[in-house]
Amino acid sequence: MKIITISREFGSGGREIGKRLADILGFDYYDREILSEVAKVGNFHEDFVEEVAEKGYDSGYTLTFARTFYYSEATWSNSTRILLAENTVLKKIAEKGRDCIIVGRCADVVLKDYKPFNLFVYADMESKVARCKSRADASEELSDKKLAKKIKTIDKNRARHREVVSHIKWGAKEAYHLCVNTTDVEPKEIAPIVATYANYYFENINK
Amino acid sequence: MKIITISREFGSGGREIGKRLADILGFDYYDREILSEVAKVGNFHEDFVEEVAEKGYDSGYTLTFARTFYYSEATWSNSTRILLAENTVLKKIAEKGRDCIIVGRCADVVLKDYKPFNLFVYADMESKVARCKSRADASEELSDKKLAKKIKTIDKNRARHREVVSHIKWGAKEAYHLCVNTTDVEPKEIAPIVATYANYYFENINK
Repeated sequence: MKIITISREFGSGGREIGKRLADILGFDYYDREILSEVAKVGNFHEDFVEEVAEKGYDSGYTLTFARTFYYSEATWSNSTRILLAENTVLKKIAEKGRDCIIVGRCADVVLKDYKPFNLFVYADMESKVARCKSRADASEELSDKKLAKKIKTIDKNRARHREVVSHIKWGAKEAYHLCVNTTDVEPKEIAPIVATYANYYFENINK
Repeated sequence: MKIITISREFGSGGREIGKRLADILGFDYYDREILSEVAKVGNFHEDFVEEVAEKGYDSGYTLTFARTFYYSEATWSNSTRILLAENTVLKKIAEKGRDCIIVGRCADVVLKDYKPFNLFVYADMESKVARCKSRADASEELSDKKLAKKIKTIDKNRARHREVVSHIKWGAKEAYHLCVNTTDVEPKEIAPIVATYANYYFENINK
């Protein structure tokens, strides 16, 4: 089974690359579907899961800590419960045994035993702002400054999410097999090249 | 004209990727040739240039600082002179107007006006040590521990070299278009994929 995980800065086009990889390779694709499953597994309202995912996980104690010491569930914060539900959902996806692309949720860390191909997608702020603007509804148009602030806040939260599950910082290249800067390239054009790279990775590790 | 710059951790196979890219794309290739030219331009002995390149540039003041204030040449340290000679040599290479690959020497920073494609090659310590061992002469065999120490020292010096010419840290992905982790892949196998990626980058920026 082949798993490709995608971590990405908000507005970098990482999700588009993910979708295209799924099309090119014929892999299953998981992104927002995970949130719905997390809500079901953890018995949360989906909007709440989304809000926590966007606005912040607390990092009072790490998942490992929580599991090691068998803290009473009653003392767990909602964000810890969500993280545990995410773990469960990601592992269920992997246990299906089907090739897949997973965007976000620190899947590279949670599923590391499956030797996923881990991709990080990033870009400079100017091109992230431009990409967000091009896909926004007219109704939710923000100024460039506000968009940049939104991007920073979301990414800061992604970084905190990662801190809870891994000692390697979010976006630190060491955690990924390939880091792709979309500042001067089009996600749709590089997806086939990334697919070739990932295919070669899977061939090589299974030699 | 197309320029590909390669920055790489010692032992990551970055130089091999560079040579193969040059073969695949039919580009000129510059690596150690630059040291000889720097020696000529700066009137240094080649061994000395190599020693400074390996053992350390001092970062007493930055190149920009040196140039802005027209410090008397007499007050410049040898390593500043070498850095200035490197600048001259890199710019001469670019002025030839021929497509080329340049390994090391912070060419991505010095030649940024030429819009080079900037590649960073890295790997985990275990695979870098293994790669160094596989290419070492029997006479210069070091223990894994000593090799790891050597790798760290050389990379630390590369990082200092960069500090003198750029505010973006050596190895920080923001400075590169693509960062390739060679831990689980073979440099020779990924070179053609990187070549495809670089070709697309040049096409896209010249649209």
